[in-house]
This record gives sequence, C-alpha cells and structure tokens, in this order.
Amino acid sequence: MNGAESLVHTLVNCGVDTCFANPGTSEMHFVAALDRIAGVKCVLGLQENVVTGMADGYFRMARKPAATLLHCGPGLANGMANLHNARRARSAVVNVVGDQATYHRPHDAPLTADTEGMARTVSDWVRTTTAAADVGRDAAQAVQAAMTHPGQIATLVLPSDASWNAGGVPAQPLPSPAVQPVDQARIAQAAQLLRSGEKVLLLLAGGAVWAEGQALAWAIAQHSGADLMADYMASHLHRGQGRLPLARVPYATEKACQALAPYQHIILVNAKPPVGFFAYPDKPSVQHAPGANLFTLSRPDQDALATLQALVAELGAPMAAMPAVGPRPGRPSGAVTPEGLAQAVAALMPEGAIISDESVSFGRGFYPHTYAAPAHDWLHLAGGAIGEGLPMATGAALGTGGGRRVISLQADGSAMYSLQALWTQARENLPCTTIILSNRKYNILIGEYGNVGANPGPTAMAMLDLGNPDLNWLQLANGMGVEAARAETLDQLCDLMAHSFAQSGPFLIELCI
Amino acid sequence: MNGAESLVHTLVNCGVDTCFANPGTSEMHFVAALDRIAGVKCVLGLQENVVTGMADGYFRMARKPAATLLHCGPGLANGMANLHNARRARSAVVNVVGDQATYHRPHDAPLTADTEGMARTVSDWVRTTTAAADVGRDAAQAVQAAMTHPGQIATLVLPSDASWNAGGVPAQPLPSPAVQPVDQARIAQAAQLLRSGEKVLLLLAGGAVWAEGQALAWAIAQHSGADLMADYMASHLHRGQGRLPLARVPYATEKACQALAPYQHIILVNAKPPVGFFAYPDKPSVQHAPGANLFTLSRPDQDALATLQALVAELGAPMAAMPAVGPRPGRPSGAVTPEGLAQAVAALMPEGAIISDESVSFGRGFYPHTYAAPAHDWLHLAGGAIGEGLPMATGAALGTGGGRRVISLQADGSAMYSLQALWTQARENLPCTTIILSNRKYNILIGEYGNVGANPGPTAMAMLDLGNPDLNWLQLANGMGVEAARAETLDQLCDLMAHSFAQSGPFLIELCI
Repeated sequence: MNGAESLVHTLVNCGVDTCFANPGTSEMHFVAALDRIAGVKCVLGLQENVVTGMADGYFRMARKPAATLLHCGPGLANGMANLHNARRARSAVVNVVGDQATYHRPHDAPLTADTEGMARTVSDWVRTTTAAADVGRDAAQAVQAAMTHPGQIATLVLPSDASWNAGGVPAQPLPSPAVQPVDQARIAQAAQLLRSGEKVLLLLAGGAVWAEGQALAWAIAQHSGADLMADYMASHLHRGQGRLPLARVPYATEKACQALAPYQHIILVNAKPPVGFFAYPDKPSVQHAPGANLFTLSRPDQDALATLQALVAELGAPMAAMPAVGPRPGRPSGAVTPEGLAQAVAALMPEGAIISDESVSFGRGFYPHTYAAPAHDWLHLAGGAIGEGLPMATGAALGTGGGRRVISLQADGSAMYSLQALWTQARENLPCTTIILSNRKYNILIGEYGNVGANPGPTAMAMLDLGNPDLNWLQLANGMGVEAARAETLDQLCDLMAHSFAQSGPFLIELCI
Repeated sequence: MNGAESLVHTLVNCGVDTCFANPGTSEMHFVAALDRIAGVKCVLGLQENVVTGMADGYFRMARKPAATLLHCGPGLANGMANLHNARRARSAVVNVVGDQATYHRPHDAPLTADTEGMARTVSDWVRTTTAAADVGRDAAQAVQAAMTHPGQIATLVLPSDASWNAGGVPAQPLPSPAVQPVDQARIAQAAQLLRSGEKVLLLLAGGAVWAEGQALAWAIAQHSGADLMADYMASHLHRGQGRLPLARVPYATEKACQALAPYQHIILVNAKPPVGFFAYPDKPSVQHAPGANLFTLSRPDQDALATLQALVAELGAPMAAMPAVGPRPGRPSGAVTPEGLAQAVAALMPEGAIISDESVSFGRGFYPHTYAAPAHDWLHLAGGAIGEGLPMATGAALGTGGGRRVISLQADGSAMYSLQALWTQARENLPCTTIILSNRKYNILIGEYGNVGANPGPTAMAMLDLGNPDLNWLQLANGMGVEAARAETLDQLCDLMAHSFAQSGPFLIELCI
C-alpha cells in the first residue's frame, strides 16, 4: 500500500467522505488512490478558491469536515482567501496539498514555493509528511485537529514521494478533542449581572444562534429582561418561523455604536467583542458604550448550548414560547428595492432553504423582512474576504445531500471573484438559485469613498465602476451550463424564483438594481 | 499632505505610472490620492490574480515596474499565485497592500490576517509602514528593491492610518542597485571549456535569449562549435526572422535528458541548472548527463549581455550573420493540429506581435513552426502556476502602450482560473487575441495519470474532465464584452485571426482541439 492509498483509507475511516479538488501532477497518486478505493465523493472546482469555499459551505451544513485537494504552494495560495473565511467561520476543513518530492525540493523547480509558510497564515494546524509510513497517522491527526470544537483548518502538505512510496499504514480515527468546559464561576457572575437591574445585552454567536440556543437565550431574556442580539459576524443562523426575530449588530460603525449604546453590560455568548470591520479617522474601534462592561460568558471554542443551559438552570428561568413573528409575507410587486427582494425571498423560499448571503451593500436590511419566512438557515461571509458566496452555496448544497434549496443573495462584484462555482453547480446538478444583485459597481466602496472625500473623479471611478463593459450574467451563467434570466421588477423576480424552485438544478437570476 | 498622497507623488517621481488595482475600504485614501494627483493610470482587474498577472506582463514589455493595489491579506492571497510566477520570471512589481489601521489590528476584525506572513512567501522585499511620514521613503525603497536586476517583487503593507494621517513626505527616486558584475575568472574558464574540443552547450536564459544576446551567443557558437539552447523556463524570448531558431530544453524528463545527454559541459548563461518540473519515481531530478560539468558563467541576477560580450572578446569571436530560418510559413488548412496552429500563428501574426503562451500540453511543439514568423516576443509561464496567460497578455498589451498585437495561446482549463482578465481587455480596448485551446479536459493531468497507473476510472475522470457541462467560451467572452467565435478547422482559425488582427480591440477564438 502506498502513502496515498493509506491517506484515502484513513480519511474514509475518519468519516471524511467528500473531497473538493483541483489536482495537479504532484497529486496524481492521490487521485489514483481515490479512483481505486471507494468511499470518497470527489467534486471538481475550476479554481482553488471555489474548492476551499465549497469545503466551508459543506462543513457548515454537514458539521463534519470535507477534504480539499490542492496543488503545491500556488494552488493553496489560490484557495487561501476562502480558507481565511472558513477559519473565521470556525469551520472544519482538512486540506491536502500535494507538493514537490522531498528529494526534488532542493532543486527549486518552478512550482516550488514556501507551502508551509503559506499554509500557516490560514491554518490552525499544519504538517508536512515526509514518509509514506506517516501519512495515515498524520491524516488522522489532521482530521482530529480540524474537529477541535467548533472547527479548525488543518493543512497536510504531502510531498509526492510520501504519496507514491510503499509502506502506507491506514490509521483509525482519533477522538475529537474535548470541548472546553463551561466555566461555572462565569455562569454565576452572568446571573448576577442579569439580576442587577441594569441594562444587559446577550450578544450571541456560534451555537447560540441556532434554534436550540435561541430557545435557551429567549428563556433567559424573558426571565431577566435582558435583550438579545446576534454578533454581526455570526456565520450561520437559524431563522424564520419558530426561531427568534434576532437583529444583528449593524455593519456601519455609527449604527453599531447606536445599537449598543443602551447597554451597561454586554454578555458575550460565543461572540467576540463587537469592533468595527475597519477603522475610520475619528470613529471608535470598539462599538460598545464607553464604560460598558464586556463580559465573556463563553468563548467561541466553548459549548454555547451547555453554557446557555447552565445559565438557564442558574437563573431558574422557565422555557418560554418563542415570540410570534407574524404571518409569512406575501409576494411583493413593483420596482426592485432591498426590502422588496427580502420580502420576495421570504414569500417564496421553500421550507428548509439555505441562504448564502454575500449581498454586501444591498443586503444590510434583509433581516426584518425575513423573520416570518419558513424556517431556514442563513449563512454569512464570516471573514469579510469577498468571493465566497457562490462556492459556499455550492458546498452547502452538497453538505445537505442536495435535498434543500440554496439561495444565493450575491453582489455582482463579489460574484466575479469566483464565478467558476456556477460550473460545479451545473455539473453536480445542485438545487442552487443565484440572485445576482447587479448594480455594476463596487457600491460599498463608492459609499466608503464618500467617507473619505468628495465625489469620486474619473480615476477613482475607473477602480469602482463595473460598467464599460457591463457584465452579462445570463451569458456568463449559460457559458458554464447554468440556465439564467433577468429580472427588472419584483414581479419578474418572483416568477423566476418560482420557476427555479420547481427545478432540480441550478438557475441564475440577474436582478437589475 | 497625507501618507497616501506622498505615496502617489513618490511613485510618480520614481517613474511608476501604471497601477493595476482591486481596491477595498482600507485603500480608499490611496484611491482618493490617485484621483487627485495626476500621473498614474489605474487599471481595474476583477480578481487579484488578474491584477498581479497584469503587473507581470506589463513589466516584461515595459521593463519598469507597475504598482498593484490590493486589499488586506486575503486580497493579497488572491494575487499570490501570479506573484509567484512573476518572481520566477524575475519581473519587477511594487505591491501596495492596504491593511487594518495600526491601532485597529489588535481588535482582530474579520479581515485581519497575517499580511506580512503571506507577503513574505512571494516577495523579495516586504515592509509594513506604520507612520505617514515614512510612506514616501518606504515607497522609494520598494521601487528600488523591485528594480534589483533583473526585477524583484517588493510588497509595501500600508495600514490605513499611515495613509490618512497628515505628515506625508514625497521621496525622490533612489538609484537602481548595481547589477552584479561579470566574473572575469569565469569568462576565462568558459573560454577554456569552449576551446577544449569537448561537447559544450550554452544554456541561455534572461537577457541571453533576447535579440542582442542571441547575436552574441551565435558568434560564440559559430566560433567555438558549441551548441545553443534556451532554458525551458526562459520567461521571455525574442523569436522569428532575424533571431536564432533556438530550441528549448523539453518539458518531459525523458526528452530533456535525451536533449542534454550529448554534452560534457553545460555553460549556464543566466540559466539555472536544468531540473525536472516535477519528480517521478525512477526518473532523475536533474537532466544533464551523469558526470557532465554544469558551469555557471552568469547567474540570473547578473548581466547576460555584458557576460556574453566579455566571452566574445575573450574568444576573439567575430560577429556572424544570423542563420537563415527560411521563408515565412503559408496559411495552413484542414484539421486542427498543434503544428497547424503554430503554422497559422506564424503565417498571420503581425510584425512585433507578443505571444502569451499558456498552451500547456497542446503547445509543446510550437517552436519549430514559428522560427520563420516575423520578429516577435514569446512569453512563457515562468513559475508553473496556471492562470497567468490571460492576465499576462493583458498587462503586456498595456506595457507596450497598446501598439502591438498580443496573441494568447491559452489552454482552456488554465483560462478558467483567471477568465476575468477578458473584461479588462474589453474595458481597455486592448489588441488582445485569445485562442482558447478547447479540449475540455485537464489533458496534461490525464497524461500524468497514465504515468501513475492505468486508465483513469470515473472518480479520477471527475477531477480531470472539464466536460459535463462543456464550457461555452463564446458566451463567457461575450458576457465580459469580448467578441468571440469558434473555429473547428485551421481555415476557420486563419479567417478569424485575420478578422481579429484587423480590429483594434480584443477578440476570442475558441479553437476546438
């Protein structure tokens, strides 16, 4: 058995049954092993950032890691932005990066690069395996590292001779690392804050914004009078009927500060302290009120559910009926607005839909209009590196086994970063509906420019405007095998969404905004 | 004056008049400064690997660096593969990477990443400037570092407060670092080898494969009886009428070993020792004959022309008429073959054309059929990271001021990595003709798979085959504003090339192979 074969056996043993791939020459023995040994579904992405973004989306729904297969340092580099996003989302991913043979590396052939140095910038765990006999052991450790709660990026660099040499030994799965325990002293302190009569916010992220966590948080809020809010960077929320109508901390610094101003205590439940996405001259970096008390009840690597359960018990808070969110919105009509788009999504999405939200500037106000939609999952770009929306949607569809509709709310400029994901949606015939928010500019940046100076002149607009030529999303989608149509009104949008949801495969709607 | 304004003034002072850009929020003050201060042309790329690949192509033709403008660590990461290629091509590039404000970085906002760590993996020079007063000085040093002969990658990380704070001081250009001198002792030793009567090869790269270097090398060869060959990884050759019909060291290990087997001495003129692109079981890493003498006459950072001039003088070799390369090939006809494609390019290219060659498996035999083309420049992928062909072509067109036709010989799989470059070709109305070699598979990998095992099974083919669905390059090109047509015969190809060459803007030919 060669090293590559021991790798495939080990991955299968560890429950890794999906590999997102863009292989090269140095990975051919791994490709051959995947071919010979059953148990791993391989999904091709036509650029590596599609591959890694799919792995993030897959984990978010499947809650188990996929492998990626990448080619040498530059192939890894192409996928690093979405590994950055996946890491910020605390997703588990096991990267396998094929590389130069150990004895060939000193010759500095053209594709030789500092693969480990690259990997370290986006990984929680990195190892280069130099002998076939170690491949199985290291792969099992990689999966274990990735499964560190709630998820980590593990990168295994595999010189090609470690793949092709004989002596591979499949490894058995290792136990997932223990989740960091609930801190009982902090539970008591939080209860004290909640009983203080002062203004308290529970800021939620991680498992605290999933259905069960929301029910516990709601019980605490009802009992104590505290308010609830989701971290702006919560990567994955359960929303719609039966879930809380949770607001997020707003993106813009002024609005975020305003939203957090009332609170004397902010209790962080798997959330990080709220800070600006960027700094601006004369604006604060932190968003809580001056003098407010930021209290970390649980860190992102702790168990949000166990924490909330402990707090419910400490307070003796009874479970409460979830608040009514009103009737499902009706089908909207007329000119396209952000609110109208959100209403259309709420009106038409199937139960159990997954929203991949990379709507950037157009999407700031989608939340209130979708509280009364059927129960659904909402995925955000956790690391802020644009170009993940389409790959994440693709991976999410695969992570649910293809049974749930995925709807991408996708800014056009960001979509162009990784449009190749559409091809994988077509190839795998995935139930992915992409709504391109086509404003033909980097609109968020035009807003940011306004914060800096006056109106952008021609040189600035040459870097902010996506017109000249206009992108034709129908042709781009068709060119990759995805059916597409254009909507210029909410009525057309609703018709096209209904058309798409009745089909099994992907569809793209260019929504002119 | 703020730091960003001092940066623009310094770049202009240093002769940097082109900026390839994909900015974000943290770069808005730099964008505003570019808007206010004349002298820098800004060219937008819709993904960062397009941006960095354009900068490589630009330098190869303009022989002076462009700036790039990138957004935070992940934006840099997206452009790293083509920075790897640019570094291997020894191109000069000055990257400006906007980043979190110095005082905001500790808050670990979502886009915060190890920007310096990423930069170091692909740069020869990296600095983070933390004060507005230092921006001008550091920018001048970045340009100086980039101009280290023949070219280097310099990356300046610019926290946003260093851009927006007052106190910027424009800097004057610094002298380019001295080129490493010719080693006279080695000249004498090389002359001795050439007079030894033993079989000698001069292996050429860098300036030695440009017209003037070729003339000197030819004089040496004629005088001494030595053979001449180009390094496989020579990134930029002058070719066609009036230039040498130089062969390259072949890609495949067996063929390379065979080509180099006759030589007892291999004199490296700015070339590196010939090694395999990858290692293979039971094949050698190095390609020269066992026991052959590899003699480094000049390193890649030395002056190839001065070296060859010194060797000509040492030998007393008279300049010789360049060898006849025969008449220009006629227009080919019939079914598409690699030879036929090469002949069509030779038959129809305008004088002074630039070939951007990312033809991968289909392009191994193009050289002999283009020796007798009009004088032209041929650009290769120097670092082996696919996805540079289209961006490099775009940048090369801009590096010549748009006056020369650029012809991309572009594999389809590689084209999909950075197809967004077509949009920039349309926006800038560049004379770029793209010939997509559409075989709908990663054909090089299917060949490599054959080296490993038997025929690829369904799991392997799922990672090697680009059909299902077929990419429609006409729609993809049209979707980005580029006119396109399909050729299924050499006759159609020739007609479409002639049609394209008569136009001022870009055109794409999907060549079914």
